[in-house]
Amino acid sequence: MQSISSWDAIDAALARRRSFAAGLFARLADGSSDGQGITRASYGDGEAFAHELMAQTAEDMGLGVERDAACNTYMTLPGGGAPRIVIGSHLDSVQNGGNFDGAAGVVAGLTALAAMKDAGFKPPGNLSVMAIRAEESAWFGVSYIGSRAALGLLPDGALDNARRTDTGRALADHIADAGGDPAALRAGVRFFDPAALGAYLELHIEQGPVLESKNIAVGVVTGIRGNFRHPNAQITGEYSHCGGVPRDYRRDAVVAAADFIHALDQLWSQVEARGGDMAFTMGKLFTDAGQHAMTKISGCVRFSLDVRTLDPKFLAELETRVDRLAARIAEARGVTFDLGQITRAAVGNVDRGIEDALADGAGQLAIPMQRMASGAAHDAAAFAAAGVPTAMIFVRNAHGSHNPDEAMEIDDFMQATRLMTWWLTQKAGAFLS
Amino acid sequence: MQSISSWDAIDAALARRRSFAAGLFARLADGSSDGQGITRASYGDGEAFAHELMAQTAEDMGLGVERDAACNTYMTLPGGGAPRIVIGSHLDSVQNGGNFDGAAGVVAGLTALAAMKDAGFKPPGNLSVMAIRAEESAWFGVSYIGSRAALGLLPDGALDNARRTDTGRALADHIADAGGDPAALRAGVRFFDPAALGAYLELHIEQGPVLESKNIAVGVVTGIRGNFRHPNAQITGEYSHCGGVPRDYRRDAVVAAADFIHALDQLWSQVEARGGDMAFTMGKLFTDAGQHAMTKISGCVRFSLDVRTLDPKFLAELETRVDRLAARIAEARGVTFDLGQITRAAVGNVDRGIEDALADGAGQLAIPMQRMASGAAHDAAAFAAAGVPTAMIFVRNAHGSHNPDEAMEIDDFMQATRLMTWWLTQKAGAFLS
Repeated sequence: MQSISSWDAIDAALARRRSFAAGLFARLADGSSDGQGITRASYGDGEAFAHELMAQTAEDMGLGVERDAACNTYMTLPGGGAPRIVIGSHLDSVQNGGNFDGAAGVVAGLTALAAMKDAGFKPPGNLSVMAIRAEESAWFGVSYIGSRAALGLLPDGALDNARRTDTGRALADHIADAGGDPAALRAGVRFFDPAALGAYLELHIEQGPVLESKNIAVGVVTGIRGNFRHPNAQITGEYSHCGGVPRDYRRDAVVAAADFIHALDQLWSQVEARGGDMAFTMGKLFTDAGQHAMTKISGCVRFSLDVRTLDPKFLAELETRVDRLAARIAEARGVTFDLGQITRAAVGNVDRGIEDALADGAGQLAIPMQRMASGAAHDAAAFAAAGVPTAMIFVRNAHGSHNPDEAMEIDDFMQATRLMTWWLTQKAGAFLS
Repeated sequence: MQSISSWDAIDAALARRRSFAAGLFARLADGSSDGQGITRASYGDGEAFAHELMAQTAEDMGLGVERDAACNTYMTLPGGGAPRIVIGSHLDSVQNGGNFDGAAGVVAGLTALAAMKDAGFKPPGNLSVMAIRAEESAWFGVSYIGSRAALGLLPDGALDNARRTDTGRALADHIADAGGDPAALRAGVRFFDPAALGAYLELHIEQGPVLESKNIAVGVVTGIRGNFRHPNAQITGEYSHCGGVPRDYRRDAVVAAADFIHALDQLWSQVEARGGDMAFTMGKLFTDAGQHAMTKISGCVRFSLDVRTLDPKFLAELETRVDRLAARIAEARGVTFDLGQITRAAVGNVDRGIEDALADGAGQLAIPMQRMASGAAHDAAAFAAAGVPTAMIFVRNAHGSHNPDEAMEIDDFMQATRLMTWWLTQKAGAFLS
């Protein structure tokens, strides 16, 4: 085994790298500002700038820098003979987003490696920071393109069928423009053999208000919710005069939609009361503007539905329950439900051993920490689905994500990076052996 | 008192006028077809044609024909010295509507008067069929313009501020174009002194499915619902990422709207269970198309609300309950409700004596009849509000109203007209004395 530097020395080196991390965030924001917020489109200019910045920084640090066919960037501190550990997150953002969603995980990785080098620490196996392309589904309608491409798990047809919403051009063309090799991806070339990886760690800002509201700096993630979605569902009733039609004769699509939402909300409340996990969101809900009127019972409501849970078995059960609920309300209200197309994403399981070790570490390092589920999807889910032992650390963040007001404090970021560095230097050797 | 012809003679004369009525409906439809349905815009060509047709028919019958400053048409069978009775309804329709909504009441009046003349019946006082202008609120955003103008009760400013949705021109200009006298209306000239009227009777198709589904030809109306409306209400919550925000932290406008609808529906159910009357309709309900997304908790829902009841006291109470409900849900869901502008229409009370007599008459004449509330508004409500003893008779009608598929059988129409004629010839004398 390689020599283990003392944690005190590594911890001190990390503390001295605070301004390195802050500076990287500042340069990143400068180079990808859209005037109001941050825009780093998947395979666009802002994302390319971010990859260049990280690669240049890594070279200056003396790390090995590689690129794969999907333009992901790998920045590696060479280690011993143990399996490679990947510290990853994405560098793209939504349109008019914030500076920290994704990028925090890459800056954390480089900061951790810088401290290790400063302290003369040699990891048990190669330790790679992976700057990932195209995680946000907003651009191509497909999520975690870069990580799935690296793992050889890009969905069939995505290269040609997924088109960027703003340009209308195919994913393959955008990858080629960015200097990648879509032909290699099409031929099945992957960067990683998932079975050969030791672990995948991702640090990410929390996209909700939990840590902020509880005044806790760091979250250790217990799992990444799977989901199913109905992007274009519809309830059909019957348009009729609001004065003339008594209650029992109505086929009111609006009231049926309210029944449906109310019942899902009741279910959610019951599931939480018994300690279970779920969430549902009807982000879109609308009567037909061409036909609706104040004095007309509504004959049509369209909506979207997103249902999530951490529990893979319950996720499948929820699909059945949603279908049954729709059927029951259709019967009771004299309407029809057409839930339409369904898309599914599997639950991302977290490695229990790493999770427990991180939770222990937070106690030892006196870092205020809470275990929590990840409601949002992350590249980590792609690694977990490929069988790689996976863990995630959340950093407190105000005002949510996907907007210019994301607010992560550098102190919180450094505590989360410290916890990750502790595991990588103090626990990973035993984990991999 | 004037002589009372035998009911058998009048009834037989009425039966012989069946084809007169059917012919009038056919000519009316021919002259106001829009290709698919019927369009008789308030103060538009189709309505003018209908007034001409009725006036010409009345002249041919030897009735007196008058017009007032708002272009309502009055067709009168002279009677004795008792107060005048008015049989009225409107001749306008919605865009692409049906042939019977409104017009049935005018044709019924002319048919009744024709039978009375045929049988040599002289009414106790002047008996006028009133063909009313502009009842439908769809054209000017104001309901029963013609009847309220005749009663001197047009809302302040309506002549200049109400504009027809298709032309954008003011009500006064449309009245002038149709040959009316907006200056007289402005000066407060009215056609009727309400206190001098003996009664107002309106026959109308049922706009709901109750008589059709129960296989009953005729309804005797027990009252006309009052209402209040919020045309442009809004719930404001907070947009946020659907994965990241737990249940307790959400400010979901869609879920708040569902709570609101669900609670109103529960209330309605309770009110009906205790034998009370109400209805609510949310004809419009929509998230913001510029901001909503499948994976975004909705920060804004807009809706319209129409609430009705037969009970004047409960109508006022309902306003308070709706406000309190909104406040309670706002508190529970962390959202704000802005119900916006409110419009109100008073409950139209039916004269209990005429209602009971009509119900008795249906039994004596062996006409299948049910007493029922009018959920929709009618010119009758304007007469009732002015203190005129008012009654309404509904005729069974399939497929609702305000659409080309209105389906009233001439047999049902003749039964309803028979019941009205029976009261006018057998009971009105005693009622007026």
